[in-house]
Amino acid sequence: MEVGPISSAPRTVEEIFKDYSSRRAGIVRALTHDVDEFYAQCDPEKENLCLYGHPNDSWEVNLPAEEVPPELPEPALGINFARDGMNRRDWLSLIAVHSDSWLLSVAFYLGARLNRNERYGFDSNQRVTLFCCLSRKYEQEV
Amino acid sequence: MEVGPISSAPRTVEEIFKDYSSRRAGIVRALTHDVDEFYAQCDPEKENLCLYGHPNDSWEVNLPAEEVPPELPEPALGINFARDGMNRRDWLSLIAVHSDSWLLSVAFYLGARLNRNERYGFDSNQRVTLFCCLSRKYEQEV
Repeated sequence: MEVGPISSAPRTVEEIFKDYSSRRAGIVRALTHDVDEFYAQCDPEKENLCLYGHPNDSWEVNLPAEEVPPELPEPALGINFARDGMNRRDWLSLIAVHSDSWLLSVAFYLGARLNRNERYGFDSNQRVTLFCCLSRKYEQEV
Repeated sequence: MEVGPISSAPRTVEEIFKDYSSRRAGIVRALTHDVDEFYAQCDPEKENLCLYGHPNDSWEVNLPAEEVPPELPEPALGINFARDGMNRRDWLSLIAVHSDSWLLSVAFYLGARLNRNERYGFDSNQRVTLFCCLSRKYEQEV
Protein backbone atom coordinates (compact mmCIF):
# COMPACT_ATOMS: atom_id res chain seq x y z
CA MET A 1 0.00 0.00 0.00
CA GLU A 2 1.38 3.39 -0.98
CA VAL A 3 1.72 5.72 1.99
CA GLY A 4 4.50 7.88 0.62
CA PRO A 5 8.13 7.13 1.29
CA ILE A 6 9.82 8.59 4.35
CA SER A 7 12.09 10.66 2.10
CA SER A 8 9.08 12.73 1.02
CA ALA A 9 7.92 13.46 4.59
CA PRO A 10 7.04 17.14 5.04
CA ARG A 11 9.86 19.12 6.63
CA THR A 12 8.13 22.33 7.67
CA VAL A 13 4.76 23.36 9.09
CA GLU A 14 3.87 24.74 5.65
CA GLU A 15 4.68 21.40 4.03
CA ILE A 16 2.56 19.61 6.62
CA PHE A 17 -0.33 21.91 5.80
CA LYS A 18 0.10 21.13 2.10
CA ASP A 19 0.24 17.40 2.87
CA TYR A 20 -2.94 17.69 4.95
CA SER A 21 -4.74 19.72 2.29
CA SER A 22 -3.89 17.25 -0.44
CA ARG A 23 -4.86 14.19 1.57
CA ARG A 24 -8.07 15.94 2.57
CA ALA A 25 -8.89 16.86 -1.04
CA GLY A 26 -8.64 13.19 -1.99
CA ILE A 27 -10.90 12.10 0.83
CA VAL A 28 -13.47 14.81 0.15
CA ARG A 29 -13.59 13.66 -3.48
CA ALA A 30 -14.02 10.02 -2.43
CA LEU A 31 -17.00 11.01 -0.28
CA THR A 32 -18.61 13.37 -2.81
CA HIS A 33 -17.78 13.30 -6.54
CA ASP A 34 -16.47 9.73 -6.51
CA VAL A 35 -18.89 8.44 -3.89
CA ASP A 36 -20.41 5.67 -6.02
CA GLU A 37 -17.01 4.26 -6.85
CA PHE A 38 -15.94 4.59 -3.21
CA TYR A 39 -19.09 2.83 -2.05
CA ALA A 40 -18.58 -0.01 -4.53
CA GLN A 41 -14.98 -0.52 -3.44
CA CYS A 42 -16.00 -0.91 0.22
CA ASP A 43 -17.27 -4.43 -0.31
CA PRO A 44 -18.17 -6.05 3.05
CA GLU A 45 -17.13 -9.41 1.63
CA LYS A 46 -13.52 -8.24 1.44
CA GLU A 47 -11.04 -8.05 4.30
CA ASN A 48 -10.63 -5.08 6.62
CA LEU A 49 -10.44 -1.98 4.38
CA CYS A 50 -9.38 1.62 5.07
CA LEU A 51 -9.86 4.90 3.20
CA TYR A 52 -6.53 6.64 2.55
CA GLY A 53 -6.03 10.17 1.29
CA HIS A 54 -2.61 10.58 -0.31
CA PRO A 55 -0.36 13.64 -0.57
CA ASN A 56 -0.96 13.75 -4.33
CA ASP A 57 -4.70 14.52 -3.90
CA SER A 58 -5.73 10.93 -4.62
CA TRP A 59 -7.76 8.55 -2.50
CA GLU A 60 -7.50 4.81 -2.14
CA VAL A 61 -9.46 2.03 -0.47
CA ASN A 62 -7.00 -0.59 0.61
CA LEU A 63 -5.91 -3.01 3.29
CA PRO A 64 -4.08 -1.47 6.25
CA ALA A 65 -0.31 -0.99 6.14
CA GLU A 66 1.53 -4.25 6.67
CA GLU A 67 4.26 -2.53 8.66
CA VAL A 68 3.53 -2.45 12.40
CA PRO A 69 3.88 -0.14 14.13
CA PRO A 70 2.97 1.81 10.98
CA GLU A 71 5.08 4.59 9.52
CA LEU A 72 2.13 6.97 9.89
CA PRO A 73 -1.08 6.82 11.95
CA GLU A 74 -3.56 4.56 10.23
CA PRO A 75 -7.14 5.45 9.26
CA ALA A 76 -10.15 3.58 10.66
CA LEU A 77 -10.02 -0.11 9.90
CA GLY A 78 -12.88 -2.18 8.49
CA ILE A 79 -15.04 0.63 7.15
CA ASN A 80 -16.45 -1.84 4.62
CA PHE A 81 -17.96 -4.05 7.33
CA ALA A 82 -20.30 -1.28 8.45
CA ARG A 83 -21.49 -0.34 4.96
CA ASP A 84 -24.52 -2.57 4.56
CA GLY A 85 -25.74 -2.35 8.15
CA MET A 86 -26.30 1.40 8.10
CA ASN A 87 -28.16 4.04 6.20
CA ARG A 88 -25.86 5.13 3.35
CA ARG A 89 -25.76 8.75 4.53
CA ASP A 90 -24.95 7.73 8.12
CA TRP A 91 -22.22 5.41 6.93
CA LEU A 92 -20.62 8.15 4.82
CA SER A 93 -20.88 10.51 7.78
CA LEU A 94 -19.10 7.96 9.99
CA ILE A 95 -16.30 7.63 7.43
CA ALA A 96 -16.06 11.43 7.16
CA VAL A 97 -15.68 11.83 10.93
CA HIS A 98 -13.08 9.07 11.15
CA SER A 99 -11.23 10.55 8.16
CA ASP A 100 -11.20 14.05 9.64
CA SER A 101 -9.74 12.72 12.85
CA TRP A 102 -7.19 10.63 10.92
CA LEU A 103 -6.05 13.67 8.89
CA LEU A 104 -5.41 15.59 12.10
CA SER A 105 -3.50 12.69 13.62
CA VAL A 106 -1.27 12.45 10.54
CA ALA A 107 -0.60 16.20 10.54
CA PHE A 108 0.41 16.24 14.21
CA TYR A 109 2.39 13.04 13.93
CA LEU A 110 4.40 14.64 11.12
CA GLY A 111 4.75 17.79 13.22
CA ALA A 112 6.14 15.85 16.16
CA ARG A 113 8.61 14.17 13.85
CA LEU A 114 10.01 17.57 12.97
CA ASN A 115 10.70 18.06 16.63
CA ARG A 116 12.08 14.57 17.14
CA ASN A 117 14.54 15.07 14.35
CA GLU A 118 15.58 18.37 15.94
CA ARG A 119 15.68 20.01 12.58
CA TYR A 120 13.13 22.76 12.84
CA GLY A 121 11.35 22.32 16.15
CA PHE A 122 7.59 22.09 16.62
CA ASP A 123 6.64 23.93 19.75
CA SER A 124 3.26 24.69 21.23
CA ASN A 125 2.87 27.90 19.23
CA GLN A 126 3.59 26.08 16.00
CA ARG A 127 1.02 23.44 16.93
CA VAL A 128 -1.58 26.15 17.38
CA THR A 129 -0.55 27.87 14.13
CA LEU A 130 -0.84 24.62 12.24
CA PHE A 131 -4.18 23.85 13.79
CA CYS A 132 -5.58 27.28 12.98
CA CYS A 133 -4.51 26.82 9.34
CA LEU A 134 -6.21 23.43 9.23
CA SER A 135 -9.32 24.92 10.79
CA ARG A 136 -9.53 27.73 8.30
CA LYS A 137 -9.44 25.09 5.59
CA TYR A 138 -12.24 23.26 7.42
CA GLU A 139 -14.30 26.42 7.78
CA GLN A 140 -14.02 27.27 4.10
CA GLU A 141 -15.42 23.94 3.05
CA VAL A 142 -18.20 23.07 5.48
CA MET B 1 -10.88 -4.37 25.83
CA GLU B 2 -12.36 -1.53 27.83
CA VAL B 3 -12.81 1.58 25.73
CA GLY B 4 -15.61 3.14 27.73
CA PRO B 5 -19.25 2.58 26.84
CA ILE B 6 -20.97 4.92 24.42
CA SER B 7 -23.25 6.15 27.19
CA SER B 8 -20.24 7.81 28.86
CA ALA B 9 -19.16 9.67 25.70
CA PRO B 10 -18.34 13.31 26.46
CA ARG B 11 -21.21 15.64 25.61
CA THR B 12 -19.55 19.05 25.65
CA VAL B 13 -16.22 20.55 24.65
CA GLU B 14 -15.33 20.77 28.34
CA GLU B 15 -16.07 17.07 28.79
CA ILE B 16 -13.90 16.26 25.77
CA PHE B 17 -11.07 18.23 27.31
CA LYS B 18 -11.47 16.30 30.55
CA ASP B 19 -11.55 13.01 28.61
CA TYR B 20 -8.37 14.02 26.75
CA SER B 21 -6.60 15.13 29.92
CA SER B 22 -7.39 11.89 31.72
CA ARG B 23 -6.36 9.65 28.84
CA ARG B 24 -3.19 11.71 28.47
CA ALA B 25 -2.37 11.44 32.16
CA GLY B 26 -2.56 7.64 31.90
CA ILE B 27 -0.27 7.58 28.88
CA VAL B 28 2.24 9.97 30.41
CA ARG B 29 2.39 7.72 33.46
CA ALA B 30 2.90 4.62 31.30
CA LEU B 31 5.85 6.33 29.62
CA THR B 32 7.42 7.76 32.75
CA HIS B 33 6.60 6.48 36.25
CA ASP B 34 5.37 3.08 35.08
CA VAL B 35 7.81 2.75 32.20
CA ASP B 36 9.41 -0.51 33.33
CA GLU B 37 6.03 -2.18 33.64
CA PHE B 38 4.94 -0.73 30.30
CA TYR B 39 8.13 -1.96 28.65
CA ALA B 40 7.69 -5.44 30.07
CA GLN B 41 4.09 -5.65 28.87
CA CYS B 42 5.10 -4.83 25.28
CA ASP B 43 6.45 -8.30 24.65
CA PRO B 44 7.36 -8.73 20.96
CA GLU B 45 6.39 -12.40 21.21
CA LYS B 46 2.77 -11.42 21.77
CA GLU B 47 0.27 -10.39 19.12
CA ASN B 48 -0.21 -6.83 17.87
CA LEU B 49 -0.45 -4.62 20.96
CA CYS B 50 -1.59 -1.02 21.48
CA LEU B 51 -1.19 1.50 24.31
CA TYR B 52 -4.54 2.87 25.48
CA GLY B 53 -5.13 5.79 27.79
CA HIS B 54 -8.53 5.58 29.43
CA PRO B 55 -10.85 8.36 30.67
CA ASN B 56 -10.23 7.25 34.26
CA ASP B 57 -6.51 8.20 34.12
CA SER B 58 -5.42 4.60 33.66
CA TRP B 59 -3.32 3.07 30.88
CA GLU B 60 -3.51 -0.35 29.33
CA VAL B 61 -1.49 -2.39 26.86
CA ASN B 62 -3.90 -4.59 24.98
CA LEU B 63 -4.94 -6.04 21.66
CA PRO B 64 -6.82 -3.67 19.35
CA ALA B 65 -10.59 -3.33 19.59
CA GLU B 66 -12.38 -6.28 18.03
CA GLU B 67 -15.15 -4.07 16.70
CA VAL B 68 -14.45 -2.78 13.18
CA PRO B 69 -14.85 -0.05 12.29
CA PRO B 70 -13.96 0.81 15.90
CA GLU B 71 -16.12 2.92 18.18
CA LEU B 72 -13.22 5.35 18.61
CA PRO B 73 -10.03 5.96 16.61
CA GLU B 74 -7.48 3.31 17.52
CA PRO B 75 -3.91 3.92 18.74
CA ALA B 76 -0.88 2.66 16.82
CA LEU B 77 -0.92 -1.09 16.36
CA GLY B 78 1.96 -3.43 17.04
CA ILE B 79 4.08 -1.17 19.21
CA ASN B 80 5.56 -4.28 20.81
CA PHE B 81 7.10 -5.47 17.55
CA ALA B 82 9.38 -2.43 17.39
CA ARG B 83 10.57 -2.65 21.00
CA ASP B 84 13.65 -4.82 20.66
CA GLY B 85 14.83 -3.44 17.33
CA MET B 86 15.32 0.11 18.60
CA ASN B 87 17.13 2.02 21.26
CA ARG B 88 14.81 2.12 24.30
CA ARG B 89 14.64 5.90 24.34
CA ASP B 90 13.84 6.10 20.61
CA TRP B 91 11.16 3.45 20.99
CA LEU B 92 9.52 5.33 23.86
CA SER B 93 9.71 8.52 21.82
CA LEU B 94 7.98 6.78 18.91
CA ILE B 95 5.19 5.59 21.21
CA ALA B 96 4.87 9.09 22.69
CA VAL B 97 4.47 10.66 19.25
CA HIS B 98 1.92 8.07 18.14
CA SER B 99 0.06 8.47 21.44
CA ASP B 100 -0.06 12.26 21.17
CA SER B 101 -1.51 12.01 17.70
CA TRP B 102 -4.00 9.36 18.85
CA LEU B 103 -5.19 11.54 21.74
CA LEU B 104 -5.89 14.38 19.32
CA SER B 105 -7.73 12.10 16.95
CA VAL B 106 -9.95 10.82 19.77
CA ALA B 107 -10.70 14.38 20.96
CA PHE B 108 -11.72 15.56 17.51
CA TYR B 109 -13.63 12.39 16.74
CA LEU B 110 -15.66 12.96 19.89
CA GLY B 111 -16.07 16.61 18.92
CA ALA B 112 -17.43 15.72 15.52
CA ARG B 113 -19.86 13.32 17.14
CA LEU B 114 -21.34 16.22 19.09
CA ASN B 115 -22.05 17.89 15.78
CA ARG B 116 -23.36 14.72 14.18
CA ASN B 117 -25.80 14.23 17.00
CA GLU B 118 -26.92 17.84 16.56
CA ARG B 119 -27.03 18.31 20.27
CA TYR B 120 -24.55 21.06 20.93
CA GLY B 121 -22.78 21.73 17.64
CA PHE B 122 -19.04 21.73 17.11
CA ASP B 123 -18.15 24.50 14.73
CA SER B 124 -14.79 25.75 13.58
CA ASN B 125 -14.46 28.17 16.50
CA GLN B 126 -15.12 25.38 18.97
CA ARG B 127 -12.51 23.24 17.25
CA VAL B 128 -9.97 26.01 17.70
CA THR B 129 -11.01 26.56 21.33
CA LEU B 130 -10.65 22.87 22.08
CA PHE B 131 -7.29 22.71 20.37
CA CYS B 132 -5.96 25.73 22.25
CA CYS B 133 -7.02 24.10 25.53
CA LEU B 134 -5.24 20.90 24.56
CA SER B 135 -2.16 22.86 23.56
CA ARG B 136 -1.98 24.73 26.83
CA LYS B 137 -2.04 21.35 28.53
CA TYR B 138 0.78 20.25 26.21
CA GLU B 139 2.80 23.39 26.90
CA GLN B 140 2.50 23.02 30.66
CA GLU B 141 3.95 19.57 30.61
CA VAL B 142 6.74 19.58 28.06
